[in-house]
Amino acid sequence: MASLLQHLGLFLLFFVSCHSQYHPLDSLTPSEFHQVQAIVKGSNPGSSLNMTFQYVGLDEPDKSIVLSWLSNPNSTTPPPPRRAFVITRLHSQTHEIIVDLSTQSIISDEVYGGHGYPLLTSEEQTAASVLPLTYPPFIASITKRSLKLSDVVCSTFTVGWFGEDKSRRVLKIPCFYTDGTANLYMRPIEGVTIVVDLDDMKIIEYYDRLMVPVPEAEGTECRLSKQNPPFGPPLNGVSAMPPDGPGFKIDGHNVRWANWDFHISFDARAGLIISLASIYDLQKGTFRQVLYRGHVSELFVPYMDPTEEWYYRTYFDEGEFGLGICTVPLQPMLDCPPNAVFTDGYYASQDGKPMSISNAFCVYEQEAGRIMWRHTETDIPGEEIKEVRPEVSLVVRMVVALTNYDYILDWEFKPSGSIKFGVGLTGIPAVKGVSYTHTDQIKEDVYGTLLAPNAIGVNHDHFFTYRLDLDVDGDANSFVKANLETKRVTDNSSPRKSYWTVVSETAKTESDAQIQLRLKPVEQIVVNPNKKTKLGNYVGYRLIPGSLSSPLLSDDDYPQIRGAFTKYDVWITPYNKSEKWAGGLYMDQSRGDDTLAVWSQRNREIENKDIVLWYTIGFHHVPCQEDFPVMPTLSGGFELRPTNFFENNPVLKTKPPTPVSWPNCTH
Amino acid sequence: MASLLQHLGLFLLFFVSCHSQYHPLDSLTPSEFHQVQAIVKGSNPGSSLNMTFQYVGLDEPDKSIVLSWLSNPNSTTPPPPRRAFVITRLHSQTHEIIVDLSTQSIISDEVYGGHGYPLLTSEEQTAASVLPLTYPPFIASITKRSLKLSDVVCSTFTVGWFGEDKSRRVLKIPCFYTDGTANLYMRPIEGVTIVVDLDDMKIIEYYDRLMVPVPEAEGTECRLSKQNPPFGPPLNGVSAMPPDGPGFKIDGHNVRWANWDFHISFDARAGLIISLASIYDLQKGTFRQVLYRGHVSELFVPYMDPTEEWYYRTYFDEGEFGLGICTVPLQPMLDCPPNAVFTDGYYASQDGKPMSISNAFCVYEQEAGRIMWRHTETDIPGEEIKEVRPEVSLVVRMVVALTNYDYILDWEFKPSGSIKFGVGLTGIPAVKGVSYTHTDQIKEDVYGTLLAPNAIGVNHDHFFTYRLDLDVDGDANSFVKANLETKRVTDNSSPRKSYWTVVSETAKTESDAQIQLRLKPVEQIVVNPNKKTKLGNYVGYRLIPGSLSSPLLSDDDYPQIRGAFTKYDVWITPYNKSEKWAGGLYMDQSRGDDTLAVWSQRNREIENKDIVLWYTIGFHHVPCQEDFPVMPTLSGGFELRPTNFFENNPVLKTKPPTPVSWPNCTH
Repeated sequence: MASLLQHLGLFLLFFVSCHSQYHPLDSLTPSEFHQVQAIVKGSNPGSSLNMTFQYVGLDEPDKSIVLSWLSNPNSTTPPPPRRAFVITRLHSQTHEIIVDLSTQSIISDEVYGGHGYPLLTSEEQTAASVLPLTYPPFIASITKRSLKLSDVVCSTFTVGWFGEDKSRRVLKIPCFYTDGTANLYMRPIEGVTIVVDLDDMKIIEYYDRLMVPVPEAEGTECRLSKQNPPFGPPLNGVSAMPPDGPGFKIDGHNVRWANWDFHISFDARAGLIISLASIYDLQKGTFRQVLYRGHVSELFVPYMDPTEEWYYRTYFDEGEFGLGICTVPLQPMLDCPPNAVFTDGYYASQDGKPMSISNAFCVYEQEAGRIMWRHTETDIPGEEIKEVRPEVSLVVRMVVALTNYDYILDWEFKPSGSIKFGVGLTGIPAVKGVSYTHTDQIKEDVYGTLLAPNAIGVNHDHFFTYRLDLDVDGDANSFVKANLETKRVTDNSSPRKSYWTVVSETAKTESDAQIQLRLKPVEQIVVNPNKKTKLGNYVGYRLIPGSLSSPLLSDDDYPQIRGAFTKYDVWITPYNKSEKWAGGLYMDQSRGDDTLAVWSQRNREIENKDIVLWYTIGFHHVPCQEDFPVMPTLSGGFELRPTNFFENNPVLKTKPPTPVSWPNCTH
Repeated sequence: MASLLQHLGLFLLFFVSCHSQYHPLDSLTPSEFHQVQAIVKGSNPGSSLNMTFQYVGLDEPDKSIVLSWLSNPNSTTPPPPRRAFVITRLHSQTHEIIVDLSTQSIISDEVYGGHGYPLLTSEEQTAASVLPLTYPPFIASITKRSLKLSDVVCSTFTVGWFGEDKSRRVLKIPCFYTDGTANLYMRPIEGVTIVVDLDDMKIIEYYDRLMVPVPEAEGTECRLSKQNPPFGPPLNGVSAMPPDGPGFKIDGHNVRWANWDFHISFDARAGLIISLASIYDLQKGTFRQVLYRGHVSELFVPYMDPTEEWYYRTYFDEGEFGLGICTVPLQPMLDCPPNAVFTDGYYASQDGKPMSISNAFCVYEQEAGRIMWRHTETDIPGEEIKEVRPEVSLVVRMVVALTNYDYILDWEFKPSGSIKFGVGLTGIPAVKGVSYTHTDQIKEDVYGTLLAPNAIGVNHDHFFTYRLDLDVDGDANSFVKANLETKRVTDNSSPRKSYWTVVSETAKTESDAQIQLRLKPVEQIVVNPNKKTKLGNYVGYRLIPGSLSSPLLSDDDYPQIRGAFTKYDVWITPYNKSEKWAGGLYMDQSRGDDTLAVWSQRNREIENKDIVLWYTIGFHHVPCQEDFPVMPTLSGGFELRPTNFFENNPVLKTKPPTPVSWPNCTH
């Protein structure tokens, strides 16, 4: 223990005293957002009023610079200069700007000439969503349907790309009816298509194709304050704050807990980014690298209704709307347990000024009653051995509300070296208004399930693509496919006829590492080919995949061309700073020319290189009535687990946590 | 709330007052075990000393009788008579005996003439395991290896069946060296084969084929009391007993919590059995059936080493050793959290008298920081809606220690209607002694991973086959395969080229329901074809599978013939009281003639019948150094989730649990 504490002490020292005020991977601070705003606006004095900030974030320093700086904690080398990456729109053009904050200057400002558009801002979506309310043809449509305009609320949907040669920066505006409920998504006003041009901020297309009833408000309310008895089932509260406070420390953006050390940052697009995760090796007496940087890279949600008003609903939520921008302020005691600690996040408004999200992330120690390891031994005469170590893990949580859906995204760090990635799907399912009130009336494909009278919950998928820049004990890594292959015993050497064995292949180039996990039993391991255990096994981390739900769209279908990064469950690329977003930097109306699938066509070498693991966890969602009017969380996840990374079980010598007594309680 | 409480009250009344002292599915009581012992021994006065009790358990009353009795809570009909099912060995014969406890008489006593042998008793295994210690050839082998006989501990392994025409009831006896450690499994004495005849209780075969070093004791100890500093990583304790006690009630074998009601019982072979799980429907104001009876039916663990001393290690742990018999007493605060309540279990010793396992099961409310459902809504002007319901669930846990391995088997009941099945693998991996001390020396297939000098962790699988007799809102159910099929849009009716839709097939006969989940995307739903929601959807429960690890042994290999029930991930059979054990009633040395695969060859009708779902969750295990000397828990699981069972989200009107304050604490 002494040595660990000593080491932690050194580590603390390293961050607190040697490395001045910031870490090179820290998110931009509010003050830095203000500086960026001033610098960029200042460089365009004539047109600053028309300029919109679509994205402002840290321009991540080169990895080699960060690693070299971190490896010399005691040197006087200054950290790499703080830079911001900015995307603006000005005069219908997209600008990519790099701002150097140390010199308060613009390093580059280039007009982007390719396909696709940047992240949408909240402000332009709000502006677009209210246009129908004063648009006479829409008002006529509402009147024709005998609805009250004052109870109509419109939202903003991205339009995708379906082979058009030319594109304008547009959104489609679906509208909903709130009369008697706050659950607007359960009351779609079907049949109307409204297209808004964002550069001109006006409606450029309008169709009212068909009329179907708006589903009733009854039963759609999920606010406790609006519900009537009976309530239930009753749940006891068993939570309590630990008397000694949390067992972790958050120092700036750095989190230290048990044997883990990592950095958390907030990005408007990615939301939570975990960097520089390393684990203390008790035997070696040192921290060892596991992950340089990891985050959700894209979230593809295609709906399965090809009709006029629905075909385009094939969202790329992260690149279009921003997981960071859509991160919700977490509610203590509800979104996170009583022992959670919260941190804030900042992103740039359309005007460039910092917007704060309070409680954007929570961090808590999870004690779920799990067992970290155990063994009962009764075979030794006269001895009964029972050794049990309860599990405590550390969770970092973000919740993203993307219009109707709410996603719960957890990173769970285990003392055993595993990182578990939790994905929870809740919120409101997207429903389509139909004329049917009972399944007996349905004689055609309605593309979903009748969830309420006149409301079809439309079939869809969710594909979460994680970019995981693993650095397993160093940045030169290889990817090993450990194939489990059946061997026949044909020489009568055994009474057995078969067994399986591991036939490992190291992927030489990108195509070797493109894996569809359904096809054959294979373990995926990122190893450090330059580091072996004392016994000679390569140190590694293994991917344990989650539910296997692969895309079912045709490869040549436009949404799937844009989402081609979901074709394989696993990809490996050589590290490339510019390859962050699996669907491309400009996702909105992208044409699939800047995806992971395209980058990988170069078939680069990936053996003994700095490599990045891309993993997609997918869910096919056939809605059911239980999803009405709000979905019980559907959970999934996957795991990165050390495999021959340690010389032995890294928690062998962990003492069971001491049960906390509540002193002097008189109840 | 009033109505729910009222209903719970009625329910309570129903069990407590109307239905006398026992529930027809209760495990045998200690007094009943004594009665069975006396009756069976009394009927064989001459030979009762030679008779061994291999299994004693409840002879489950016919399902129709139980259901009819339960459906008339106010009638004076007595419960079905208590009967015991007994398997004894006497004069090298297996007897199947049914004892009626109400008349204190034997109803039938038949000699079993087929293949395979019953559950092993602890006593005969202990007797067999000490035979080598006084067997001169073995003593010579130990001396030849320069080991101390006093530090040798032997265990008992089942031998399987490899095509032999004749079989005797035998075990193989592997021996281990404990000098300097309690972790015997890490120190195998390799190369020796000892076969014990259990009927004669003597060694009938002995070979000493080869000598390899016994792996060192160093680093194998997992007892805290024997470990030296440094310890770590340190974990804070955050647990605390809830001040108001648990929110569930255990009344006899019945558990009531939130909206769930179910019965738990203990069986020597199955361990935990959950029966008559039903959920309160707040809208309908009534409890609705979900599961008549569920338990692990078999646990197949084949190792992948075809050599002389290892080929036969293809265990069927449940049918050979008994999950109940191997259930460990759970340790409060360690195996289960502070808020757990424990219940005991009983099984018959070889002599027939009841053996108690204290704390065999624990029941606790799990508050892991999860979110049951949530939604944040910001699209409505002037309103921000944030509704969050934290999740509390109820866990019933059993831990089974099967020689070296420890299995953690959880049933988690969620208020949303889901049942999650957790499987945790921990304990000691089985290692083989070899001459290698470094991977550089290995030039052949060693069937596993070098975990320590001279110790190979041998590749193996774990297949947990669950028998789940679902009664979805009644016992006449059907099995629906909801295939997700890609449709091409070929008529230019949409800018899309493809989408997927659900093409449902109802399985008519058993072969329709045999599913290999890897092959295509399909949802598995057990529906009640006689009950629809108001909207017309069939009420159902869906299986959400866990990790897909299918058997890799050849179909014609003997272990796979015996374990043919793992060939498909999912099977459906019509309910048949005698079809409980997927590998057959007599698993030890079985020949595969009484498995689920054989029963299903009849291809019986399963539509609108009382059906049973069999699901196998598998794990391929390539050991790694982290598994040495005790494995960090590897977790998996699967879920049964209501799908159109309720008219809407059943926890829509659940209030968030009140945070518990700790009154008058002065710390």
